[in-house]
Amino acid sequence: MKRANVYLIPNTLGGESLSDIIPADVSAIAISLRTFFVEEIRSARRLLRKMDREFPIDDCTFHIMGKSIKEKLPIILLDLSKRGENCGVISEAGCPAVADPGAEIVSLAHDMNMEIVPLVGPSSILLALMASGFSGQQFTFHGYLPRERRDRIKKLKDMEADAFRNGRTHIFMDTPFRNMHVLEDMVNELSDATPLCIGYNLTLHGAYVKTLSVGEWKQRAVDIAKKPAMFLIGTKR
Amino acid sequence: MKRANVYLIPNTLGGESLSDIIPADVSAIAISLRTFFVEEIRSARRLLRKMDREFPIDDCTFHIMGKSIKEKLPIILLDLSKRGENCGVISEAGCPAVADPGAEIVSLAHDMNMEIVPLVGPSSILLALMASGFSGQQFTFHGYLPRERRDRIKKLKDMEADAFRNGRTHIFMDTPFRNMHVLEDMVNELSDATPLCIGYNLTLHGAYVKTLSVGEWKQRAVDIAKKPAMFLIGTKR
Repeated sequence: MKRANVYLIPNTLGGESLSDIIPADVSAIAISLRTFFVEEIRSARRLLRKMDREFPIDDCTFHIMGKSIKEKLPIILLDLSKRGENCGVISEAGCPAVADPGAEIVSLAHDMNMEIVPLVGPSSILLALMASGFSGQQFTFHGYLPRERRDRIKKLKDMEADAFRNGRTHIFMDTPFRNMHVLEDMVNELSDATPLCIGYNLTLHGAYVKTLSVGEWKQRAVDIAKKPAMFLIGTKR
Repeated sequence: MKRANVYLIPNTLGGESLSDIIPADVSAIAISLRTFFVEEIRSARRLLRKMDREFPIDDCTFHIMGKSIKEKLPIILLDLSKRGENCGVISEAGCPAVADPGAEIVSLAHDMNMEIVPLVGPSSILLALMASGFSGQQFTFHGYLPRERRDRIKKLKDMEADAFRNGRTHIFMDTPFRNMHVLEDMVNELSDATPLCIGYNLTLHGAYVKTLSVGEWKQRAVDIAKKPAMFLIGTKR
């Protein structure tokens, strides 16, 4: 019997069109499936309907990922596996199983000898890294910064020191409503010479990405409040 | 006058088809350009011809990235900038400006206030991370491992310790002809319980990705010699 595949289906980063961010075959695979593990049913349905206006949403099963499904997950996967039925994992934005509970499903699917098929789509981490001009030979993604200001500043300074010493690029983000605080901390606490890249609205209308020194950012008014933003600290060649 | 854009155009990971890895609009943008910064002219031409069989290669200017162009680069970019002419950066495989000299061009283009536009395409780093089932909340890409066996083993053990202690995922690779040595070192030197993901031929025919414990890899014959492979050390949830 055929092995069941688990397709990792990228979602948009919030934009409307798919033709600039999703390869045609990825959509074709996604709309061939009827069982999905999703972060939010609404955004998954929206994606599938964009891929195919006639997509039979009502014939599908949507499992919401996270704690509520944890106990049932082995049984659901075992059942799919037994029946050789493929399924998909859809995150709320971007590539699934990177910064969402999808990784748990993938991990368990490996244990059950299901085949994992990652599909190509937008990742704000990777797009920001490409556009920064910083080294991608070695880089670290840190996720969200610490919430406490003192911890946050220590983290920022540690990243700055490592970038300077080892040439490694550091990528991080924060919840959009804290973006201006993060920028303020960087501008006040990091060295004026440190290269800093800020990207926001990537793949969206009004996309912006710019690398300047901290000293130059000080002189520049940039409104990143409530926008999905990525920050990168690196070195100039 | 219009600002000149620098488009970062993803290439295949070695496969034949584009429809599974390149969004339609990305191809449309690429074939609208006539000036390219490329790692290798041949692979860039092959990509453009795949995007459009009628693509007028002979009307294009291809600049090979790297040392030979370093001195002329500011003049070339200034000229494009003045004329408001868009250009593209194409790597030999995958997303440009991550692990190739493209980052230098992006860095200089930022200084000249050109607009950088990263486009969506395949990245073996990201595809492997998605498919590993390991945490993507925090991860480090290390590029190639040290060539000396002693240094390599130290590096592997450092990554294992950090994954165990901090839950961070570590991603690395090596030149394909050293893959079997790397696997041997991991199987002999790391703890049997450590989760290890190996992926190869991603997006290609015969793609493979599997997460097992080091102890399980010991029992399994896997031929990764001379294949483009990614290795990941992480933690099981």
